[in-house]
Amino acid sequence: MTESSGSPIAVLGLGAMGRALASAFLEGGHRVAVWNRTPGKETELVAAGATAAATAGEAVRASRLVVVCLLDHTSVHDVLDPLAADLAGRAVVNLTSTAPNEARELAAWAERHGIDYLDGGIMATPPMIGRPGSSLLYSGSKTVFEEHTPALKLMGTADYFGEDAGLASLYDFALLSGMYLMFAGFTHGAAMVRSAGVSAAEFAERAVPWITAMAQTIPMATAAIDSGDYTTDVQSLDFNKAAVDAIVRASRDAGVGLDVIAPVKALIDRQVADGHGAEAFDRIFEGIRPLTPSPVR
Amino acid sequence: MTESSGSPIAVLGLGAMGRALASAFLEGGHRVAVWNRTPGKETELVAAGATAAATAGEAVRASRLVVVCLLDHTSVHDVLDPLAADLAGRAVVNLTSTAPNEARELAAWAERHGIDYLDGGIMATPPMIGRPGSSLLYSGSKTVFEEHTPALKLMGTADYFGEDAGLASLYDFALLSGMYLMFAGFTHGAAMVRSAGVSAAEFAERAVPWITAMAQTIPMATAAIDSGDYTTDVQSLDFNKAAVDAIVRASRDAGVGLDVIAPVKALIDRQVADGHGAEAFDRIFEGIRPLTPSPVR
Ligand SMILES: NC(=O)c1ccc[n+]([C@@H]2O[C@H](COP(=O)([O-])OP(=O)(O)OC[C@H]3O[C@@H](n4cnc5c(N)ncnc54)[C@H](OP(=O)(O)O)[C@@H]3O)[C@@H](O)[C@H]2O)c1
Ligand SMILES: NC(=O)c1ccc[n+]([C@@H]2O[C@H](COP(=O)([O-])OP(=O)(O)OC[C@H]3O[C@@H](n4cnc5c(N)ncnc54)[C@H](OP(=O)(O)O)[C@@H]3O)[C@@H](O)[C@H]2O)c1
Repeated sequence: MTESSGSPIAVLGLGAMGRALASAFLEGGHRVAVWNRTPGKETELVAAGATAAATAGEAVRASRLVVVCLLDHTSVHDVLDPLAADLAGRAVVNLTSTAPNEARELAAWAERHGIDYLDGGIMATPPMIGRPGSSLLYSGSKTVFEEHTPALKLMGTADYFGEDAGLASLYDFALLSGMYLMFAGFTHGAAMVRSAGVSAAEFAERAVPWITAMAQTIPMATAAIDSGDYTTDVQSLDFNKAAVDAIVRASRDAGVGLDVIAPVKALIDRQVADGHGAEAFDRIFEGIRPLTPSPVR
Repeated sequence: MTESSGSPIAVLGLGAMGRALASAFLEGGHRVAVWNRTPGKETELVAAGATAAATAGEAVRASRLVVVCLLDHTSVHDVLDPLAADLAGRAVVNLTSTAPNEARELAAWAERHGIDYLDGGIMATPPMIGRPGSSLLYSGSKTVFEEHTPALKLMGTADYFGEDAGLASLYDFALLSGMYLMFAGFTHGAAMVRSAGVSAAEFAERAVPWITAMAQTIPMATAAIDSGDYTTDVQSLDFNKAAVDAIVRASRDAGVGLDVIAPVKALIDRQVADGHGAEAFDRIFEGIRPLTPSPVR
């Protein structure tokens, strides 16, 4: 069964993100009941056609799909726990950023109360919602995902990862780690060149195309990581060790903090010390990976 | 004065990279005299038209431009020190990876001996030399750079950064830091999703476009870094702290090493503890930057 277009949606939480989500549903022709703990954030949405609910329960009871976008895991329980009976039989899509285990805990809580629970991670900023480049990741109830896909797609691309409610969040956080480390790397490089008076703006002109080009080489590394066979006939860990050791020395010479580069050196050093200097750089995965990973699906 | 096309070039060091450089000069129509400490690596180059020199001095004396590509700073002195008299009045382009201060030391050594010294960093692997995507960074003698630009361009794009011989290497290492941290970030993310059985290959399908898209946002951060004014009305450090704290917890839950993500958390925490939680993420630069940076040029 697919929802009828325009079916009622509740949006709980009208922070910057919740407001953007509610707008996207309104633009998509849905009736939208909005609620926020602190009143006043609903004004523009009401002007655009939303209904302001006096309580979260009122918003929930007016809707079949309940979209939650609060601060964190605790605030989700604060708002949803008193509404468990009202939510029973309804679909909850929780787009609050939560850790994978928190999403799993919420899914178990929902199941105990007969609530259909889909967890989601938003890979976008509020202004991007409903626009190209907005991507949302989902896991948990496949039924909710399939039934409400048209509504979900109003916010951005909708990808479903599996019944494990923690998966979307795990993916979300994994992608964010990549982003944060990439930003940290740019920042470290900017600090290095700044020692010679080069601005971050000038550095970015080169760093962005360089990082972009290097990111495209990532898929070449994945076979080694997935198979555990890091044999290589190109740049070995010994080669990369020499390069990173030189970067560390040059950073120290330039008075730049080793905060983010020293750990990369340590990961390389550990593999080299374990006798893997002739193998590929990607072997640093072995120093980070979970001790008992699930087998590759 | 621009060199005559086909003018003689010496290449000292026939490792993987030196051989690629010599090939590019041969393909560009230059006479090339090659030398390597251990004989035997010149065979293919000689078949392609290079002259094998019995000694480094012989190669130098046959050429106006001397391209050096050895292992490291020490090996450059090992090879060039005995040849100082022969090199006087000639142009040396050193493409060996050296730290900025090592390049500066070599430039000072060269100046004492009346040698024109240009330092370079190669942003390419050997098979890329002379092909699209190969980029070389130079600093030091502007005369050498300008006179030999046509020959240098046979290896890849040629960009000149300034008379400070350490600049090219500083840039090189700064770009490499960005790359290594970006790879480390991908690796961390791959380890997170691996806890749920997701392969690195599957993760890369999403991570590469995501990291690519995020890299394009870097220029938006540079004005804050260059001005030191980190005021923001979008995502604050407090916001990013919540996200990175959640990533750290999720990583720990997944049994993933905190090696590369914990330092990012520490940089954020330091800024927040110093009272800058409402300012932009890019303020982590202040935790890494040189204590006494040169003013932005
Ligand atoms: N903004 C982004 O770029 C972005 C991107 C991806 C994901 N997200 C995620 O989306 C979620 C919301 O982000 P946001 O930017 O909208 O944050 P925000 O502007 O700070 O809004 C937070 C919302 O949570 C509510 N809230 C907090 N604690 C509560 C509690 N105990 N009970 C009831 N309501 C509570 C706030 O209500 P009051 O108005 O009453 O304080 C407010 O509506 C977060 O999990 C965030 O990580 C945001
Ligand atoms: N390969 C790359 O992808 C790449 C990329 C950018 C920059 N680079 C830089 O380019 C330089 C060369 O790299 P490569 O890949 O060609 O390395 P390589 O294959 O290991 O070759 C090293 C070369 O240095 C020579 N050498 C070492 N110590 C010496 C000494 N004391 N005296 C005389 N010769 C000595 C070796 O001679 P023998 O044959 O006698 O040992 C060999 O010719 C390095 O600084 C590297 O960082 C390489």
